[in-house]
Amino acid sequence: MNSQADSALIHPVILCGGSGTRLWPVSSRAHPKPFLPLIGETTLFEQAVARVAASAGFADPIIVAGAQHCDAIIAQMHGAAHQIIVEPAARNTAPAIALAAARLPEDAVMLVCPSDHHVADTAAFQAAALAAANLAREGRLVSFGITPEHPETGYGYLRRGAALKHGYEIAKFVEKPDLETAKTYVASGDYSWNGGIFTFQAGTLLKELARHRPEMAEQVKAAVAKGRNDGAQFHPDPERFSAIAGDSIDYAVMEKTDCAAMVPADMGWSDIGNWAALQDALRAGDEGKTDDDGNTARGEADFDQCRNVLAFSDGPRVSAVGLEDVCIVVSGDEVMVTSRDHAQRVGKLPGVTNLRSFTK
Amino acid sequence: MNSQADSALIHPVILCGGSGTRLWPVSSRAHPKPFLPLIGETTLFEQAVARVAASAGFADPIIVAGAQHCDAIIAQMHGAAHQIIVEPAARNTAPAIALAAARLPEDAVMLVCPSDHHVADTAAFQAAALAAANLAREGRLVSFGITPEHPETGYGYLRRGAALKHGYEIAKFVEKPDLETAKTYVASGDYSWNGGIFTFQAGTLLKELARHRPEMAEQVKAAVAKGRNDGAQFHPDPERFSAIAGDSIDYAVMEKTDCAAMVPADMGWSDIGNWAALQDALRAGDEGKTDDDGNTARGEADFDQCRNVLAFSDGPRVSAVGLEDVCIVVSGDEVMVTSRDHAQRVGKLPGVTNLRSFTK
Repeated sequence: MNSQADSALIHPVILCGGSGTRLWPVSSRAHPKPFLPLIGETTLFEQAVARVAASAGFADPIIVAGAQHCDAIIAQMHGAAHQIIVEPAARNTAPAIALAAARLPEDAVMLVCPSDHHVADTAAFQAAALAAANLAREGRLVSFGITPEHPETGYGYLRRGAALKHGYEIAKFVEKPDLETAKTYVASGDYSWNGGIFTFQAGTLLKELARHRPEMAEQVKAAVAKGRNDGAQFHPDPERFSAIAGDSIDYAVMEKTDCAAMVPADMGWSDIGNWAALQDALRAGDEGKTDDDGNTARGEADFDQCRNVLAFSDGPRVSAVGLEDVCIVVSGDEVMVTSRDHAQRVGKLPGVTNLRSFTK
Repeated sequence: MNSQADSALIHPVILCGGSGTRLWPVSSRAHPKPFLPLIGETTLFEQAVARVAASAGFADPIIVAGAQHCDAIIAQMHGAAHQIIVEPAARNTAPAIALAAARLPEDAVMLVCPSDHHVADTAAFQAAALAAANLAREGRLVSFGITPEHPETGYGYLRRGAALKHGYEIAKFVEKPDLETAKTYVASGDYSWNGGIFTFQAGTLLKELARHRPEMAEQVKAAVAKGRNDGAQFHPDPERFSAIAGDSIDYAVMEKTDCAAMVPADMGWSDIGNWAALQDALRAGDEGKTDDDGNTARGEADFDQCRNVLAFSDGPRVSAVGLEDVCIVVSGDEVMVTSRDHAQRVGKLPGVTNLRSFTK
């Protein structure tokens, strides 16, 4: 492990959690979202790694993931240096991040990134990371505040507080709002999306975790102390780690600490949280081919009197007629058709959970 | 050929024309609509033949079809006696029907039926056929007037005229109306759908054709005179038949003759002219499995917050989310999704006509 970390470097910590079932049938437990080429020719994981390349001044990444993801990670690192911390169980983001922090020097600046988000503007991302690192070195725990592009109801929001030299204090964390509230947030200019991207020094994070969730901090410490190295993989002690009551880093630390800060980031970000979000990202990048009526194709497709339709197919041709705001997805022996408005429900379908279908 | 026809028998003439491309991708030029099991376990053609079974008092059927359909016809007759008149070219219904008439005794009562329609109530069909036969023996050319079940804009209408002993005169033939007009037709009770089913004596039909389209009548007569028998198949002379200017029986004869009549037929009829019509027929018969929200499945399907959705698949599971009035069809390597309102447009898709698709 990188025990002589150059404190000028930023240490990427890439989280591979979540099942991505709302992108079923393309994404599934067997084929998780980070490791699929959903936008462009590379996977979301490969893109997350490329954004924190050594050439841009980042340290080798630490990847926190379940054992079931290690083969995909190793394959998609393409031989680049990295470390994997293999979670014995999924316990949400706070324990995952604390594991990485416990493996780094106290003064190491961590940049915590999900592995399954999309960022269109890498330069803006890296600039925000540098600003966040400066705040982190002043003892702040920093959230990326994503400039909202529309009144999204699926994200949490951050309200900007007093200005700091390299960013802002966070006046308030806001849960997912209803549409009317989201509209006022976007109109005000004071709110950002909480993108789940964080920067802090390892020691600061562990200290604040110990203050607000002392039991979790102890359990992580013990799991790391009793863990074992296996080449580039580190295995925390399963018994101790599994005993942790999981929680998100927002709930466990960020919303409780007095040291929270944010950096604004206007970088074409999306969590690609459902098919409508993927459609938007494809259209914005024209990674699919988008026609004058806003219809986007991945694979062969024909649109007749359609508006704002996504056709995403791994083989069969898709022909769409007289539809508006619909996503059509063909993958293997599954065909899924959803209205954009209902795209959030896809993760609950019988096909995802292997429930019995309605059959003739 | 049945030259000693029992004039008490009704002679079914089953027309196999049309490509059925509005039911693409299931139906296509290679797999035409009449020969597919779209409703129930048997094909529309098999059902058309079963409705005019010998056991119900019908003569052996005459089938008028192109050469490309003969293999399917022979297979789907399952050894039952029949004759095929092989059209050298497609020239619409008037020449096809005239061919059959020219092969029958003058006093033979013909019952002309498309091979690709659906009739839910066979007993009602047969009762209407008997009434129509009585009118035919009085020298009438009889259309089946289908009791309209909704204000359909895709069909022509017949306005009922003066009562006859076994039916009605036809006061007027009406082209496909707009929706408002169709509503007034249905509300009035005076209008029926023109179902494309006809009954007349062979001699009456040929006499009226000679009166209103003398050239066509001569050409058919010559094509039959110069034709050749080949077992159960009769081949009209190709050169003479191909020279005919094609026309429908409605335009060529029914709308011009003074002898037109109609019999009312309330028999659960549909021309299955597009996916919305097939959906309605499946739902009415519950041949697919229909849930409380009006969603119908052929093949494995799941519906989540959907209303009035058809999922018709030859293999892959279909999952539909948040859709209303949509037909989803999966066949081979084609996936077609249409709103019910636009179902008529399916026959013009690039996939049907083998145009190039919009491809990423």
